[in-house]
Amino acid sequence: MKVVADLCIVPMGVGPSVSPYVREIKAIIDASDLEAEMHPNGTNIEGELSDICRLAEQCEARLAELGVQRVFFTLIFSSRRDKAQSMADKLKAVS
Amino acid sequence: MKVVADLCIVPMGVGPSVSPYVREIKAIIDASDLEAEMHPNGTNIEGELSDICRLAEQCEARLAELGVQRVFFTLIFSSRRDKAQSMADKLKAVS
Amino acid sequence: MKVVADLCIVPMGVGPSVSPYVREIKAIIDASDLEAEMHPNGTNIEGELSDICRLAEQCEARLAELGVQRVFFTLIFSSRRDKAQSMADKLKAVS
Amino acid sequence: MKVVADLCIVPMGVGPSVSPYVREIKAIIDASDLEAEMHPNGTNIEGELSDICRLAEQCEARLAELGVQRVFFTLIFSSRRDKAQSMADKLKAVS
Repeated sequence: MKVVADLCIVPMGVGPSVSPYVREIKAIIDASDLEAEMHPNGTNIEGELSDICRLAEQCEARLAELGVQRVFFTLIFSSRRDKAQSMADKLKAVS
Repeated sequence: MKVVADLCIVPMGVGPSVSPYVREIKAIIDASDLEAEMHPNGTNIEGELSDICRLAEQCEARLAELGVQRVFFTLIFSSRRDKAQSMADKLKAVS
Repeated sequence: MKVVADLCIVPMGVGPSVSPYVREIKAIIDASDLEAEMHPNGTNIEGELSDICRLAEQCEARLAELGVQRVFFTLIFSSRRDKAQSMADKLKAVS
Repeated sequence: MKVVADLCIVPMGVGPSVSPYVREIKAIIDASDLEAEMHPNGTNIEGELSDICRLAEQCEARLAELGVQRVFFTLIFSSRRDKAQSMADKLKAVS
């Protein structure tokens, strides 16, 4: 299922500053084939839901290597069948 | 990746009352092998993230058969490696 | 604005186990006048959005007293004008 | 409580295309004093949680004038006490 998603990954238990971990997450997402753009509260990603879930798992595995034992995720997404709509289309439609 | 998740599925564009659609979603979730319990704002589900994503896709496919062209989802989940923790464990730990 | 909400509060930076903090959150929510029920991934709450936000702030203040410097929240809610619908009504409509 | 938030507003029951409604939401957010930037899946907003909730209510009221009877919202936010961090700071810290 093709979706436009907003993924937020929260490393728990490693202090209030998580930017070193988010940089690792960003590197994994950037290295993937998925269209993605990070914003201050997460990353917008376009693609198959299964690919996005796999990406979330890769990020969790990398965080575990760095000592993060617990990770909290929010994944908000939508699908539509009446027409194809990219992330860029969504923004264009409202501006 | 084993997760404890909270899945909310919002049928868009089919009027303010969506309970007939939510009943169909409930039937699909109940028929799955996943441990799940519906609550007033979503369904708590325990299992592999990939299985939960597949379940979300099945729900979307059924909604499409019923005429729902666009579906909005929220999926909030967490994973942990320091210990196994079921949904029941989570509730017990705080009561 | 009257809403049915699902509030999840994630204490960051205090180790993977957060149940002592969640117990404090539960005590604050239970002491409030709002109709609320905790579930494995959050707390369903019914009431004015402004009251729910105030409750989230009280929880954050208590967590700060306990040494939590950073808190992540998800608040999912819906409002409707075509009819009044409680959390119990929502569940009844789909069972 | 000062927060960095990601607000997503989903008009329900008015067809799969919601861009006319999202344009109205954007106008209300732009007219507010809050620092905000729309992205493909929501709007990042920085400010007092109570002001952001008030903004969500204003959007709901405008949608009601346009005939939207039911609105679904996701509001994801975080607060921190160890240091002040703007949305721009968050992005800079990970790039």
